[in-house]
Amino acid sequence: MDFKEVILSRRSVNFFDPEKDVPENLIREMTEMAANSPSSYNLQPWQLIILRDAEEKKKLQQLAFNQPKVSEAPVVFIVLADREGWKAGHPFAEKNFKEKCKEGSAAPDNYEIYIASCQKLYGEDVQKQQAFACKNAGFFAMSLMLAAKSLGVDTHPMDGFDHEGVRKAFRIPDNYWIPLLLAAGYFKSGQTLSPPKWRKTFEEISVRFD
Amino acid sequence: MDFKEVILSRRSVNFFDPEKDVPENLIREMTEMAANSPSSYNLQPWQLIILRDAEEKKKLQQLAFNQPKVSEAPVVFIVLADREGWKAGHPFAEKNFKEKCKEGSAAPDNYEIYIASCQKLYGEDVQKQQAFACKNAGFFAMSLMLAAKSLGVDTHPMDGFDHEGVRKAFRIPDNYWIPLLLAAGYFKSGQTLSPPKWRKTFEEISVRFD
Repeated sequence: MDFKEVILSRRSVNFFDPEKDVPENLIREMTEMAANSPSSYNLQPWQLIILRDAEEKKKLQQLAFNQPKVSEAPVVFIVLADREGWKAGHPFAEKNFKEKCKEGSAAPDNYEIYIASCQKLYGEDVQKQQAFACKNAGFFAMSLMLAAKSLGVDTHPMDGFDHEGVRKAFRIPDNYWIPLLLAAGYFKSGQTLSPPKWRKTFEEISVRFD
Repeated sequence: MDFKEVILSRRSVNFFDPEKDVPENLIREMTEMAANSPSSYNLQPWQLIILRDAEEKKKLQQLAFNQPKVSEAPVVFIVLADREGWKAGHPFAEKNFKEKCKEGSAAPDNYEIYIASCQKLYGEDVQKQQAFACKNAGFFAMSLMLAAKSLGVDTHPMDGFDHEGVRKAFRIPDNYWIPLLLAAGYFKSGQTLSPPKWRKTFEEISVRFD
């Protein structure tokens, strides 16, 4: 599917066909495509909890203002942003350093410098940790929505949910922020998709402060 | 260009040809494609400062660990994430409500509810404000990188810079976080692109905590 068609036709869909499942191989394929997203120092501080089970989706729906799409969509992702994905001892921060050594972009002797610069850029304070986690998870989630669309799968990103309630219900550790839930499935036939919503123009996006 | 080709061939490029400019119409086209990204309540809390001027890029380079690509790339975006883009009185929060009324997804009587729910979801505390700004700007920036690639333009997202220094140098108001700088241009011929870096597998991305 053509890129421009994907980016212009992706819509946040409200009505999913509960009878039309998304095969597991497509979930894998869209996730693997999205995994190519860039990230700070290639730390990839994102994870997905993938829900298909009706009872689990019901539990999530109750924590998401009871939005029907949470249980109607065959698959719902809880997207996680790891605020500690830069830390010494973190499995992926450690793996990243080992892989960098293998790739030749770091040398084993540089471990202390690697950890110190991660700490400085991403861990210095709560604001930097939150920005690190959410920006990178935003890259990943955007790629996931577009990759889904390229495979014919519709999505809907949601942030109308009880953040701490979802954390508790799915036993999500404190190092994660939950930047969004993402429903995935197929638009229900017979429903009408509302026209695209307004978007900022180029002139509204581009700014100067001098 | 095919979507899968775009997402798999996008690379963070280190060497830009300083002689090969990116025409203004392509900058506009990639920005307008990226403007279709979804956002929390459609608030679109993103802005771009677009730098082309050699002196301005030099000033930015000095605040970005002196990375040569900041001045070698013909265009550098300072991506801004608006932590107050949900607030009563904010130009785009106000415009968004008016547009929602026109679109029929809100009624003028619901203004108080609109502002209260924005406040609850995005403004309740500093963590939520930062997550709101950076996640949405992450969506937009990811789309911008992919849209650029689809037009044959290479990019490089950077977070190695002095955040407060850049704020000061470009007089960026406090409501914005700067989640990344993004260099855009064309890969310099004669340079070698390093092989793609490691990425998490599907099994590494998918988690459960029960």
